Amino acid sequence: MDTTTHPVKYLTNDEVCNILSVPECVGVVEELFKDLSNTQMPPKIYLDIPNGDFRAMPAVVGSTAGIKWCGVHLDETGHRRKVNIFAKVLINDTVSGKLLAIMDGESITSIRTAAVTGVATKYLSRLDSKIAAFIGCGNQTKYQIEAILSVRDIKTIKLYDLHSEIAEKMAANFEGYETIVCETLEDCVVDADIVTTLTPSRNGYLKYEWLLPTVHINAVGADAEGKQELDGSVLDNVDWVIYDNYEQCSHSGEIQYVKYKDKKQEWNSLENVVSKLNLKQGWIQDTLFDATGLAIEDVATGRYIYEKLIRSEQSS
Amino acid sequence: MDTTTHPVKYLTNDEVCNILSVPECVGVVEELFKDLSNTQMPPKIYLDIPNGDFRAMPAVVGSTAGIKWCGVHLDETGHRRKVNIFAKVLINDTVSGKLLAIMDGESITSIRTAAVTGVATKYLSRLDSKIAAFIGCGNQTKYQIEAILSVRDIKTIKLYDLHSEIAEKMAANFEGYETIVCETLEDCVVDADIVTTLTPSRNGYLKYEWLLPTVHINAVGADAEGKQELDGSVLDNVDWVIYDNYEQCSHSGEIQYVKYKDKKQEWNSLENVVSKLNLKQGWIQDTLFDATGLAIEDVATGRYIYEKLIRSEQSS
Repeated sequence: MDTTTHPVKYLTNDEVCNILSVPECVGVVEELFKDLSNTQMPPKIYLDIPNGDFRAMPAVVGSTAGIKWCGVHLDETGHRRKVNIFAKVLINDTVSGKLLAIMDGESITSIRTAAVTGVATKYLSRLDSKIAAFIGCGNQTKYQIEAILSVRDIKTIKLYDLHSEIAEKMAANFEGYETIVCETLEDCVVDADIVTTLTPSRNGYLKYEWLLPTVHINAVGADAEGKQELDGSVLDNVDWVIYDNYEQCSHSGEIQYVKYKDKKQEWNSLENVVSKLNLKQGWIQDTLFDATGLAIEDVATGRYIYEKLIRSEQSS
Repeated sequence: MDTTTHPVKYLTNDEVCNILSVPECVGVVEELFKDLSNTQMPPKIYLDIPNGDFRAMPAVVGSTAGIKWCGVHLDETGHRRKVNIFAKVLINDTVSGKLLAIMDGESITSIRTAAVTGVATKYLSRLDSKIAAFIGCGNQTKYQIEAILSVRDIKTIKLYDLHSEIAEKMAANFEGYETIVCETLEDCVVDADIVTTLTPSRNGYLKYEWLLPTVHINAVGADAEGKQELDGSVLDNVDWVIYDNYEQCSHSGEIQYVKYKDKKQEWNSLENVVSKLNLKQGWIQDTLFDATGLAIEDVATGRYIYEKLIRSEQSS
């Protein structure tokens, strides 16, 4: 495509959501992870600020260079602690060097993070998974549920949140499914084929003894040093640990607390799972996907959105 | 200032230039270098693309977190090689976490780079400097001349470029000064009190034997691995080497080719020169300022522009 003829596009979160659905983004992310050889991704840079941090996440994917600049900021001025998240995604074409678009990054982050969970769940969970549990019902969770519904024939959505009214509200989004708001963590996960953890916890709360022996876990919440959702018993016992990116997970993900050499299970990358391994055959095993969120996901998703927008403008 | 009440500002290069002059930015940068203790600046991240590179430059300065995302791209599709430069600067307030502004970054880069040269020249060149030489007459050079004119009582501007018509054009901007377009490098620098090098050269061309014994050199062009403007004789012989940032200069600046321990001269930082040392007393010495361009300069300048814009809106 000749990018020199188009002016820079500015997209809001609403426009991003109108262009890209979670199931469609599952396809984008699956395609990305099939071959990472044409990507570059230096480690995320963290800048500490008094009540949070800022992150610079640059990457190259094929002919796109881009960056997500985002901040997580805890507002303690009000009665209740409030987490502010800010993000922008900028993408450039590497052939022309030109800036293509500046996009609000909050929705891209939610959609691509959910899409990665969808890809991991597609390749790692039992094919006959019926019950999916979600711990934490913040802004991210709706997208995560949509991702899992798009890859497995889920009948029952189980939800847990420290504030049960938030879980009730989330449940209301999914008419046509059985939704169960649980009173305890254990109740929520005990019969779940797929468990997705979505909290900013700094204490491992999810115990292995509560889980089915063939469970697939998506550990999404831990994406910075000090964050943790899984009790040590989970990493002691699951058969497979799959990371989105080893360097990043061992710095910011669930595996920051353990060393591979201490563990008996298999560790591998999502790239290998998508491109080479065939773990779906191994239904009797339990699997853990450790997701920290990658800059390449933002850049690939941003470029996809941009190209779809240009195509729609050309055809209209 | 309560930043929560203002919408995000978008500024073009022209608007940036209308708000901030080079002499004013010299003041901003001087203030910045007086105390870097409230700053954070991880190393620039370079992403290679086929005909150039992209750079992510995040930093925190006081209550501002920001990033410059920029690219340098060599266009070889036309008859003549053309260097495309692209840049955006985003700044956030760290107290609210909020995005304050997205600014075109090309003019900010030119202005702040020139301003740093101005600060170094103010502290390092002879007080009675009359002749300033500039090697390379690209887009950056006009700003660099303005910076040096603002800190010393220059009578004569000497210019050299591989394409003399470009140097002639540059000279036309400075009526009221004696301007001399030189035919050789040596002619240009031989009687100059201040020499500023502004080329993308990859070979050291500036020889020490051509220079006055009390010269001050600003080496601005080398800002990436492999770039070099100074012949080895310069670094063998100058009395002082001052860097904007040691880590960055030893990776991307002129001193990437040498080791401090091999050298007899004094090496120090611009921060120390501005805040502690008083090198202006030492007129008999020659000095070299090695500039690679720092993310903190972009962030401090971006915030200054933003605050000035808000003040002007409030008073109008």
